[in-house]
Amino acid sequence: MTGDRELYLFSSDYLKTFCTQVFIHFGISEEDARQAADVLAKSDLRGIDSHGVARLHTYFDMLALGRINPKPKIKIVREKASVATVDGDNGLGLVVGPKANEVAMEKAEKHGSGWVSVCNTNHFGIAGYYPLKALERDLIGWAMTNTTKLVAPLWGAERMLGTNPIAIAFPGYEEPPIVIDMATSAVAYGKIEIALRKKEQIPKGWIIDKDGRDTTNPQDMIDGGAQLPLGSEREMGGHKASFRT
Amino acid sequence: MTGDRELYLFSSDYLKTFCTQVFIHFGISEEDARQAADVLAKSDLRGIDSHGVARLHTYFDMLALGRINPKPKIKIVREKASVATVDGDNGLGLVVGPKANEVAMEKAEKHGSGWVSVCNTNHFGIAGYYPLKALERDLIGWAMTNTTKLVAPLWGAERMLGTNPIAIAFPGYEEPPIVIDMATSAVAYGKIEIALRKKEQIPKGWIIDKDGRDTTNPQDMIDGGAQLPLGSEREMGGHKASFRT
Repeated sequence: MTGDRELYLFSSDYLKTFCTQVFIHFGISEEDARQAADVLAKSDLRGIDSHGVARLHTYFDMLALGRINPKPKIKIVREKASVATVDGDNGLGLVVGPKANEVAMEKAEKHGSGWVSVCNTNHFGIAGYYPLKALERDLIGWAMTNTTKLVAPLWGAERMLGTNPIAIAFPGYEEPPIVIDMATSAVAYGKIEIALRKKEQIPKGWIIDKDGRDTTNPQDMIDGGAQLPLGSEREMGGHKASFRT
Repeated sequence: MTGDRELYLFSSDYLKTFCTQVFIHFGISEEDARQAADVLAKSDLRGIDSHGVARLHTYFDMLALGRINPKPKIKIVREKASVATVDGDNGLGLVVGPKANEVAMEKAEKHGSGWVSVCNTNHFGIAGYYPLKALERDLIGWAMTNTTKLVAPLWGAERMLGTNPIAIAFPGYEEPPIVIDMATSAVAYGKIEIALRKKEQIPKGWIIDKDGRDTTNPQDMIDGGAQLPLGSEREMGGHKASFRT
């Protein structure tokens, strides 16, 4: 995948410092910059390359375009003992997400459960980052997010649903914890990108082309196709991941 | 499906009264008997025939065998503002479930969310009954349960997982509410039973036989096979419904 280029290896700490410096460059506080870099680093360390430091450039672009507020006033706009709505003031999702997560975890420790929804924010990195934080405090963690439209509902031809990731982690007492971190599409979009880069075909059931026909050519996704929901077909339960009644 | 027999039609109210009388016969209080009959009736009225009055005989058998406590002392054994554990004292699941649901809804109204887990109970009817009750109070409802082992994890040949249903309902503001009520297997076990009764083949991807091979013969499930998780295959995301990491 490196083509004719050489392969360079960097330590995670080095990359974390690099990312922190990039965020600071845009006027983000050092504390927030470290937090954002930590989310990216954790992704790479878990082997989810698509969401790690490799994605720094998208945050860079958004900050350069002024589409992300480097100094957001993140605040709770609605609250009960075990729920809250957090307004991210359009700050970096990698900063807003962890703050909202902190509110949820505090509520869970005090009142048994805590659910926080977030508005005015953007890409928050791997969904798994948040429940993993909960595990450190012996809590069950659960994170969900919407995404841009990429997925067609079962028997549909049009992108109408997000890949809507779900991540759940729960302590395993004497066993290792269980950690789930997945998109609700048949596969993550990143796997289609990888097939494109490698110029490989993909299995039937991952995507449809712009006319709603089955295809194994990843380029058809770029050309207006859509991803399929988990299960892909009626027989495999594709209607269940469309979550439509 | 009625074979040589005649088809009889009964009103829902008639069947509800009949079920109530059956439960009272076993020493269940009239209030609890009515509650249990309501869960069965709601299932039929939603078109989920497999879980309605047709299943009365399984509750009948369990009560007749003394395996269900007709006069349980249902109590909260652990509690915080937004969570509780309810001990069902081995009462009828159709009675324990609604009581636990009531605790959860009260907590949600007071504290923003309420999560209740239940021990010492049994089959609680359609999972969808519980979130539908929440909808009546303008709450988001969520019900999950384990089941007996019926499903093989992806690439497995052995029954290791339940069909573990999930039901979620949420109000739709000016739109109708969204109601999801599904097993996390490719299809509900009831669909395999129906194919058996009709002597029909089933699609590949629903079950495997006792040696872990694909099969379209529903009898193979009875003969030691296993259901497949939502998605069925690796390409369709079958690993995601196995929920194993």
